[in-house]
Amino acid sequence: MSDLETLSASVTALEESIATTNGGLDVFYLLFAGAMVFFMQAGFAMLCAGSIRAKNVKNIMLKNILDACGGAVGFWTIGYAFAYGGADSSKLTFIGNSDFVLANIHDGASLIGWFFQFAFAATAATIVAGTVAERCKFEAYIAYSLMLTGFVYPVVVHSIWSSSGFLSAFTDDENKFLGSGMIDFAGSGVVHMTGGVTALFAAKILGPRIGRFYDADGNELPEPVSFPPHSVALQVLGTFILWVGWYGFNPGSTLGISPAGYADVAALCAVTTTLAAASGSVSAMFTDMLMTRKATGETMYDITMCMNGALSGLVGITAGCSVCEPWAAFVIGIIAGWVYIFFSSLLVKLKIDDAVDAVPVHFGNGMWGCIATGLFASPGLVANAYGTPNNGLFYGGANAGSSWVLRLLEEVGLDISHHKGAAY
Amino acid sequence: MSDLETLSASVTALEESIATTNGGLDVFYLLFAGAMVFFMQAGFAMLCAGSIRAKNVKNIMLKNILDACGGAVGFWTIGYAFAYGGADSSKLTFIGNSDFVLANIHDGASLIGWFFQFAFAATAATIVAGTVAERCKFEAYIAYSLMLTGFVYPVVVHSIWSSSGFLSAFTDDENKFLGSGMIDFAGSGVVHMTGGVTALFAAKILGPRIGRFYDADGNELPEPVSFPPHSVALQVLGTFILWVGWYGFNPGSTLGISPAGYADVAALCAVTTTLAAASGSVSAMFTDMLMTRKATGETMYDITMCMNGALSGLVGITAGCSVCEPWAAFVIGIIAGWVYIFFSSLLVKLKIDDAVDAVPVHFGNGMWGCIATGLFASPGLVANAYGTPNNGLFYGGANAGSSWVLRLLEEVGLDISHHKGAAY
Amino acid sequence: MSDLETLSASVTALEESIATTNGGLDVFYLLFAGAMVFFMQAGFAMLCAGSIRAKNVKNIMLKNILDACGGAVGFWTIGYAFAYGGADSSKLTFIGNSDFVLANIHDGASLIGWFFQFAFAATAATIVAGTVAERCKFEAYIAYSLMLTGFVYPVVVHSIWSSSGFLSAFTDDENKFLGSGMIDFAGSGVVHMTGGVTALFAAKILGPRIGRFYDADGNELPEPVSFPPHSVALQVLGTFILWVGWYGFNPGSTLGISPAGYADVAALCAVTTTLAAASGSVSAMFTDMLMTRKATGETMYDITMCMNGALSGLVGITAGCSVCEPWAAFVIGIIAGWVYIFFSSLLVKLKIDDAVDAVPVHFGNGMWGCIATGLFASPGLVANAYGTPNNGLFYGGANAGSSWVLRLLEEVGLDISHHKGAAY
Repeated sequence: MSDLETLSASVTALEESIATTNGGLDVFYLLFAGAMVFFMQAGFAMLCAGSIRAKNVKNIMLKNILDACGGAVGFWTIGYAFAYGGADSSKLTFIGNSDFVLANIHDGASLIGWFFQFAFAATAATIVAGTVAERCKFEAYIAYSLMLTGFVYPVVVHSIWSSSGFLSAFTDDENKFLGSGMIDFAGSGVVHMTGGVTALFAAKILGPRIGRFYDADGNELPEPVSFPPHSVALQVLGTFILWVGWYGFNPGSTLGISPAGYADVAALCAVTTTLAAASGSVSAMFTDMLMTRKATGETMYDITMCMNGALSGLVGITAGCSVCEPWAAFVIGIIAGWVYIFFSSLLVKLKIDDAVDAVPVHFGNGMWGCIATGLFASPGLVANAYGTPNNGLFYGGANAGSSWVLRLLEEVGLDISHHKGAAY
Repeated sequence: MSDLETLSASVTALEESIATTNGGLDVFYLLFAGAMVFFMQAGFAMLCAGSIRAKNVKNIMLKNILDACGGAVGFWTIGYAFAYGGADSSKLTFIGNSDFVLANIHDGASLIGWFFQFAFAATAATIVAGTVAERCKFEAYIAYSLMLTGFVYPVVVHSIWSSSGFLSAFTDDENKFLGSGMIDFAGSGVVHMTGGVTALFAAKILGPRIGRFYDADGNELPEPVSFPPHSVALQVLGTFILWVGWYGFNPGSTLGISPAGYADVAALCAVTTTLAAASGSVSAMFTDMLMTRKATGETMYDITMCMNGALSGLVGITAGCSVCEPWAAFVIGIIAGWVYIFFSSLLVKLKIDDAVDAVPVHFGNGMWGCIATGLFASPGLVANAYGTPNNGLFYGGANAGSSWVLRLLEEVGLDISHHKGAAY
Repeated sequence: MSDLETLSASVTALEESIATTNGGLDVFYLLFAGAMVFFMQAGFAMLCAGSIRAKNVKNIMLKNILDACGGAVGFWTIGYAFAYGGADSSKLTFIGNSDFVLANIHDGASLIGWFFQFAFAATAATIVAGTVAERCKFEAYIAYSLMLTGFVYPVVVHSIWSSSGFLSAFTDDENKFLGSGMIDFAGSGVVHMTGGVTALFAAKILGPRIGRFYDADGNELPEPVSFPPHSVALQVLGTFILWVGWYGFNPGSTLGISPAGYADVAALCAVTTTLAAASGSVSAMFTDMLMTRKATGETMYDITMCMNGALSGLVGITAGCSVCEPWAAFVIGIIAGWVYIFFSSLLVKLKIDDAVDAVPVHFGNGMWGCIATGLFASPGLVANAYGTPNNGLFYGGANAGSSWVLRLLEEVGLDISHHKGAAY
């Protein structure tokens, strides 16, 4: 039977060959996605540069670059180790404790994984740069940047995305928080809420820019003063770059494209991401126009609404991009536009000065994204993406899985969880 | 024979495994290409922003963003359904009639296909934004944008790219227009002429900006006045982004990379795209320099010529990028530069005011691209890409296929067809 | 045994199928990487535009576009043929002599290879544009650009990367220079030193801009005058675009992703590229800050240092990105920052006026990158990437391969070689 043996050897060789091809394909996929996410640094930088007064551009640009550089150093030295090091699904830990400085890691999958995760960490960090524009000391910002990418963000990631995290969906079943764990597909919560809430605290602590709510002597102004953006072209460029980068951020969060079913999930992410951005933009712009018309009688279209609306839709769909039908993505985007307007007005009322409205976009819609996933997750799609058919409230979910939104809202008052498994 | 059975099962598993890998690879390919095409939105925005007067930047930027957002909404709700829904190669229809709002579409190939096609629709829409810059009412523009991506563009796509289109090459043979159908590889006609001709009508209807050909009282000026672009840097940025995006637009139009032969076609597209852009730029710049020198005695190099020449070459090669030899791409680009200069002068003579010269670039060279394909299609390459060896006039084509350029020019006076099949 | 025959046929079909998939995957990989490298043209353009005085932007932008266009024409007509045409590893030649205008080349792998190599050639050409900004005649620049991409760069490429090059590692063993040949993974030497040294000569020949070191009458100024950049936002945009493009430049230099082991190399390149950029930026900025503080007592953070430091780190890691451990990349970046500061000061001392500091970044760190590879190449990683375990000095390399750094430094005083093989 030498023929059979030869053939058998050929088949074995083929199996290895396909495994090699798949390995190469997946590394390429994350290289592409990671580069797109890293490109978002340019988007944030342009959005910030355009949004503020010309005299402060240099200052904020320096912070934007340092976020990328400090982020890389912080995430390489300790951040990645704290986030993912030594994970063991049988026990829960606060932080990881191995793989510092990527020592002894040589396989392509892990290395490119680090690259992809680094790009996310840098994104979380740079969200803050815009908010504190025009008034944060550079040294303080460096300290913040290293702290966030080296410690705060890794702790959040570890808790939710590592298999040893106390909120994770990847621990052994008996360790899963509320029986399912908190899951966040591409990071509405992990990335955007982390960045957004940090921005909120920073803005509160630093206080408003002089002349925004109070004059130089500290007297309250009769009306809040808006500082006009100095370059709309750069703002638009930044918005488009961010939108493009999101095609790495969301579809890339499958972390691979070769396994069966992943391509369906990734393709769905591209569609839902597109629709939520579009509807968020339209929603924010027209809602603002109608509100302004009601107040002043004038019909004005505000491009800032249009841009921040699109970004709000993108943040809002980030958690649920893989489990929502296209129509749901459209609705999530519409509401994201409203969430943006609400939080933006709220900040002004609270006299918290956010130079680029990063808090409403990333914190407000980071929250909305997590809640929305609970509401709109389609049972069929969840089954595709995660193996188990948990579903959102609007599908009348009555099983254990589907009620987590309410349970979480009741029990922890914070909702950054949805169900995931296979797709990681 | 259990060994044989085991082996047979392994082979079956391998076949499925390769199919999965290929599926993933092709979705990834269109995700990449679609993201690149979408990135062109940023390119158009920067080109427009740089080309016009600073005071109008905000206005045009809003239109650019709305093209992307309105385009997504329009193409999702009805556009895609009209373009491709319910196609049946056995009968011809005016428009498609199913798959509205992507209902019931869950496979990755279709979803990512929608994403890629959406990016094309948004491109067609945004071509117009530049032309009508500085004078089109925002509400009118929104209506236009939705109409174009929701109806006009889909009708064109349906006619030429759907298997039920009356000009399509994908209908059953007896339904093929002139026996072969009209084909346009990446859309010189479908995308650029559609956008360009819309821009032409819009510019005609809106009339010129005040001070361009007539003063504020409507008196004709002795000489047309050029409005200088306010930022060359943004124009160049836009040009480069568009050029980069074209590497998604043209090679991506194979719609996949895994089937045998597709990689050869995609690689050829990258080369021909590069060469036509380069020669278009050089051609327009030096031709303009020589003409100016003859007229004025001065030697001046005009960067606008350089940029629009490159874009003209890109539009000109879009139809034939997959079937022309590199030398032919070079020649097509050279002529594209002349076509641009000719149409640009013609518009000025006709007192049609195109703020960014989008009509010469997209309409003029969209036409040229379709004609050029008929002239330069290489028999060997057509056979590679489309299965049947139709060839261009310069190869002495005398068979049925090769004479379509002349036939069409005679019969319909409009030439947006070339032969394609396998590569879709 | 018809079952066995059927199965055997299936296995053969599968083998072909995988080969097709791998071919498609590799073409896609180089399309992606080449597009990213081409995108660097936009990065250079924005960096230049931002770095110079507003009045000269138009002039330099024209040169930047012409580098891409002239580069394509020059590299297509003769450059590629000189670089790679008719290579034969059994004999050494000065330049290649076939494949002019890509005649008779139709396979996807070769075509996309041309595209990727063209993008590199255009990069080498455009490095010079910034240095000679504000004073080089346009006609002279065109002549330079064609000469560099058509002849100079191809000769360098031929010598080092072709299998007939006298310094190549791909000739037959008896022809290898010093027994191993000179190798440069992604082009610290081939691309960046070539561009950088050209810039140095050009800057020397053209002389400084008026008012930089001498006044309009040629009298020496007491202190060199810096011309402030006119747009920091565009500089930062350019820096980020270049950084993103480098993820095509370095990982893409594996020239494929499907063969076994390539994915590991590509992933490592993404990581080392990131870390060197980050540490280069931090190093240059803080070193400059400390030096300035020592000199003036003031604490200032210079964003130009931050940006050029990142670019220096990127150039510095380009040669060794595939063979250095992450920690080594970090160290290489740190030193790259110092190398930048040293060369930048040296140029000022020598009264050589480099408008964008391209010489320190590309020439200075191109050299450093080649030396660094010799010092830091890890034996394990070299074995992964190149088949033979040559190692850098810091690993105590005592075998024939490892001592090439010293040998070369002694014998030719120029070190642009490291060991490579399998990864090409």
